[in-house]
Amino acid sequence: MSRQAPIVKSMLELLERGNLQAFLALAQKAEPADLGDVLSSLDEEERLSVVKSLPRRLSGAAIIEMPDELQAEETIESLAEDSPEAVGEIVEELADDEAADFVGSLEPEQQERVLAEIEDREDIEDLLRYDPETAGGLMTATVVTLREASTAGEAIESLRRQAEEIEDFAQVYVVDAQDHLLGVLPIKRLVTSPAGRAVRDLMEDTEIRVPPEMDQEEVARMMSRYNVPAVPVVDGGGKLLGQVTFDDVIDVVEAEQTEDLLKFGGTSAEEELSAPWTEAVRRRLPWLLVNLITAFVAGGVVYMFQEELGKVIALSIWMPIIAGMGGNGGTQALAVTVRRVALGQIPMGRAPGVIGKEVAAGLVNGFVVGLVATAVAMMLGHGAKMGLVVLLALTGNLFVAGFAGAFIPITLGRLGIDPAVASSIFVTTFTDVCGFLLLFGLAGWVLGV
Amino acid sequence: MSRQAPIVKSMLELLERGNLQAFLALAQKAEPADLGDVLSSLDEEERLSVVKSLPRRLSGAAIIEMPDELQAEETIESLAEDSPEAVGEIVEELADDEAADFVGSLEPEQQERVLAEIEDREDIEDLLRYDPETAGGLMTATVVTLREASTAGEAIESLRRQAEEIEDFAQVYVVDAQDHLLGVLPIKRLVTSPAGRAVRDLMEDTEIRVPPEMDQEEVARMMSRYNVPAVPVVDGGGKLLGQVTFDDVIDVVEAEQTEDLLKFGGTSAEEELSAPWTEAVRRRLPWLLVNLITAFVAGGVVYMFQEELGKVIALSIWMPIIAGMGGNGGTQALAVTVRRVALGQIPMGRAPGVIGKEVAAGLVNGFVVGLVATAVAMMLGHGAKMGLVVLLALTGNLFVAGFAGAFIPITLGRLGIDPAVASSIFVTTFTDVCGFLLLFGLAGWVLGV
Repeated sequence: MSRQAPIVKSMLELLERGNLQAFLALAQKAEPADLGDVLSSLDEEERLSVVKSLPRRLSGAAIIEMPDELQAEETIESLAEDSPEAVGEIVEELADDEAADFVGSLEPEQQERVLAEIEDREDIEDLLRYDPETAGGLMTATVVTLREASTAGEAIESLRRQAEEIEDFAQVYVVDAQDHLLGVLPIKRLVTSPAGRAVRDLMEDTEIRVPPEMDQEEVARMMSRYNVPAVPVVDGGGKLLGQVTFDDVIDVVEAEQTEDLLKFGGTSAEEELSAPWTEAVRRRLPWLLVNLITAFVAGGVVYMFQEELGKVIALSIWMPIIAGMGGNGGTQALAVTVRRVALGQIPMGRAPGVIGKEVAAGLVNGFVVGLVATAVAMMLGHGAKMGLVVLLALTGNLFVAGFAGAFIPITLGRLGIDPAVASSIFVTTFTDVCGFLLLFGLAGWVLGV
Repeated sequence: MSRQAPIVKSMLELLERGNLQAFLALAQKAEPADLGDVLSSLDEEERLSVVKSLPRRLSGAAIIEMPDELQAEETIESLAEDSPEAVGEIVEELADDEAADFVGSLEPEQQERVLAEIEDREDIEDLLRYDPETAGGLMTATVVTLREASTAGEAIESLRRQAEEIEDFAQVYVVDAQDHLLGVLPIKRLVTSPAGRAVRDLMEDTEIRVPPEMDQEEVARMMSRYNVPAVPVVDGGGKLLGQVTFDDVIDVVEAEQTEDLLKFGGTSAEEELSAPWTEAVRRRLPWLLVNLITAFVAGGVVYMFQEELGKVIALSIWMPIIAGMGGNGGTQALAVTVRRVALGQIPMGRAPGVIGKEVAAGLVNGFVVGLVATAVAMMLGHGAKMGLVVLLALTGNLFVAGFAGAFIPITLGRLGIDPAVASSIFVTTFTDVCGFLLLFGLAGWVLGV
């Protein structure tokens, strides 16, 4: 649940009261994210008028902090429609990676109109060539570089000259005359070394570098693994192209979180949260049709036992209970195991232990749930035999659920299939089928139907 | 899927061949995360012997990169059992926040034994006082500070003196004589300013600061929102206590991802992925018992229609299909909506639109799935009337699923209840109950049973 920062409330109140002067004064002091919240809370017309009245530097920074849906269609596109020069001016105030995202969210013809307003359009066009979900798409091309041959004193002079274009000095890269990446120089070392020491002797090796084609999730995982605030992007020849910084990566990890939940919930990870209903149909229908096939498998089991069911119609009451509990137990085991597989926490030798744990938990949970259900069966007057059937069916089905919930994602992971996507369909089919087989099979055996 | 870095493979091969000398040489050059992977791949005995043969600096850094489960029980605890001095020496080489986590993973008596070996145990004990899931638990107390009254030149001198204790200079804090936080000084500004300028005039205000009690998720959200690489932790009086850095935050965001999936899968967010089966029972059983109650509701609906079912036993085949498809459709809508609620993307006025979208998608998906199912019904010889019942029941149930999947999480969110936890149980109960009501109700109407 996101709460509004106090400054956001104040700015909105000033706008409501029509006090634009005071709003602009407060906006100067606000963080871009807060100003972005203000824009998001306005309707499209108000938003455009506020954007146009703000200094270009502020409006650009605020727009890129808005949620994607409002950003692209309702703000950047309508602003580009209204005034391509304004968009051009805003883009010129942004960092190159943000500028590329900004322009990239427009339709091709609009892009052309906006780029025509921009002086150094080539830098942005270079970045636009990369897939937005790769290292190249995330990176900024403005990096702090030093030559290996310079001294610490010369290096600090050089940083002074570069300071104007560069946002921060978190990472300083050492390159040769052809811009090949040679190492990194922690600013701490530079500041604390004698002015005469050569940069070459101060720099550290950097094994951690990524190609521009690397998928953004892999970049994020790498930065998190090695705890680096920025990672250099180099081409095949070792030439420094740019860097990806920690703030881009947090966004990627958050987007990944959305994708995982969507996959687990049985829709496409590519479904935009705010997409129109037609996209929701397109993304989800294929999955529902696959599910329909597996539902028919469960229905088929019931079909096999039509005769028995006709004799003891009370069994039908227990069908949704036994299948449903199995599904719940399986999903619990699945959630835990899918996550462990994703984090690489299940090396080869540990799989039997993990499955054993889930089976044990399922067995115990099934037995307890089964006892409760049996008590209900007795109270309903279904008799002791039916109670025994229910107890054994629930225990058995949660045992099966624990096994399937662990075995299926581990196996899919080994086969290189993302277990978050495909597991739940197999697990619930498994528990439905086994649940009905147990219920009717045990009924045949215990009740003699 | 985590792949092993080439250097990890090489180190493991050297260990296997018993070439400890070459292994230690390679370990010197390895990143802590890679060395942590090597330790994780060994069995407990080998691991302890490698840890003891490594330089203390390396073994500590590597251990904290291991997965939590292996770290606490199988490594730190057994090492502390075996040799508290070794643990003490390792802890002394760690940064204070890591040292506190390290010691914090031990049992109280072991903690005491290890702390007795450490010279500056007070720093670690200070950090151990904070809840590990708060800003205080994440923070490091070693920060770079400057006095407001000094000049840029003096400040650089002061940084040189502090350099030994401090890992990096990402964030430099300006404090008064009583350590009250006055502002931050971007290193870029310091390096590029004339030596005579006062720090007071160079520093920037910092509105972004957190109390030590703040929950780690809120800290992570704040840092991601404001794109800062580090956030200062201050007490109620404004005194600087420490800072939380970006690398801690990426870990928090990843842990949150695990929690979300566990909640969505119907188990407790507090269940440790690697917990023993007894904890799995304890965490999941209450949830299964709640689910049992709702399953009885669905069973109760079937009970109401025993007579009808007895007349047309073929209806039983369609029970799992209609309930199951409704559950799937509801979970799809739920995954999308839960995530939007969590990201704060559904302001008051937008709720009807979001629900409308899900209802429309459910209706269309239900109709298409219903047509396929009807075709199957005809092929099975269930007749045109039964086909119509199936078509209408599936369309209706996916309509209901879209509504429930959006309405329930939005409403829970408004009530301040985490929709990831409680939604799925309501949604599937809803779709089960409505599915059976639709199936039997329509059967009564169309088939006249």
